[in-house]
Order: sequence, then structure tokens, then C-alpha cells
Amino acid sequence: MSAENWLDAVEWNEAGLVPVIAQEAGSGKVLMVAWMNAEALRLTQESGEAWFWSRSRNELWHKGATSGNVMRVREIRVDCDGDTLLLKADPAGPACHTGERSCFFQLLITDH
Amino acid sequence: MSAENWLDAVEWNEAGLVPVIAQEAGSGKVLMVAWMNAEALRLTQESGEAWFWSRSRNELWHKGATSGNVMRVREIRVDCDGDTLLLKADPAGPACHTGERSCFFQLLITDH
Repeated sequence: MSAENWLDAVEWNEAGLVPVIAQEAGSGKVLMVAWMNAEALRLTQESGEAWFWSRSRNELWHKGATSGNVMRVREIRVDCDGDTLLLKADPAGPACHTGERSCFFQLLITDH
Repeated sequence: MSAENWLDAVEWNEAGLVPVIAQEAGSGKVLMVAWMNAEALRLTQESGEAWFWSRSRNELWHKGATSGNVMRVREIRVDCDGDTLLLKADPAGPACHTGERSCFFQLLITDH
């Protein structure tokens, strides 16, 4: 898809953002959920590394710019109603700010 | 965790909801994103099958009640800031209303 087409394929919310699920390409491990605006998606496509929109800092955020834990993007998918992205990536290190590999390190309920 | 504890572990949004990423337990395939309120989470824990909150119909939704494509829950995880759940499940059939196995069947961007 061309840039115009993939920006149009996304249903941006009222704040111009879309939630993004980051998944480790090799293992399938779900790493984190973050947000992108159109500029973050464009920068991600251009650089091949994940860029997000930080809602707390209100700024573009090149994941790993300080920690070195960048995410090399393999592919980005969009769901059936266009309002969620799935980013498959090779992370250079832990995705979570706690140092855990995934933000989902806490088990809530199990079937056993 | 007891029911009181796991309901408290979740940061429900202003509408009393939390987004839930449903992932196929065996393959790691990300299937869909839906919403739960506390009652949906409680019903999911009690029944072992995924219950969500339908924002369009404004009602509890036993996934697969009509289609038969229920999701047998293996575990539920919560992320570091408590505002997103990851539900690992064995789906009885396609997760997407389009008949696709996953809602993320559309490729937006690839590195090739």
C-alpha cells in the first residue's frame, strides 16, 4: 500500500490516535500496547523502527531512543474495523519500562 | 488471586471498561480486541469462557453464544499499568465476524 492508502485505512479516534499492539515477531509474545498518530505511523514506516505517540508526555516517542531497546518492525496489520493496529517486531531488549520483556508479566487468572 | 483481588488489579476506564487482547493460546496468533467490564471478567472467570461488554449493543456478550465460536480461556494477564488485559484462549472457530480466524487479516505495512 502507498502512504496515502495506509493512512486512510486507519480509523483514527477523536484525538487522532490509534492503539497499537506490539508483538514479538519470532515468539508471538505480546509485548505492550501503545498509541500512534499518523505522524508516528509514517515515521515507523520510513525508519523501520517503532515510533509511538506518548499520551503522558504529549509527544512523538521513538521507542528505544534512550534505552537502546528499539523495535525493528516486520509488519503492521489493521483489524477488521480499522481501529486497532498489530505491529510485529524484533525488539532489541525489554519492551516494558520495568525491565520485563513484556508489559504483561502479571498473571491475573488461570484455568488451573 | 481471589475475585476481589483481580477485580482490584484492573484500572477500569471512566466507563468501567478495560480493553482485552484475545490471543490464541497455542499459536500465539492475536485474534481480536474487545472490552470487558467487571461483570464480564467475573463471568469469564466463573465459566472459563470469554465474556465481553459490547459497546455497540451496550450489553454483556458471551462470545460464541450464537455462532458457537466460544473461547475457552487458558489465562488472563494484566499489563504493568493495569489498563489492558491479555486473554489467552483456545477458540472453537473464527474470532472475526467476517469469518476470518483473526480480525487482523489485513496487512498494512511490511518490511519487504
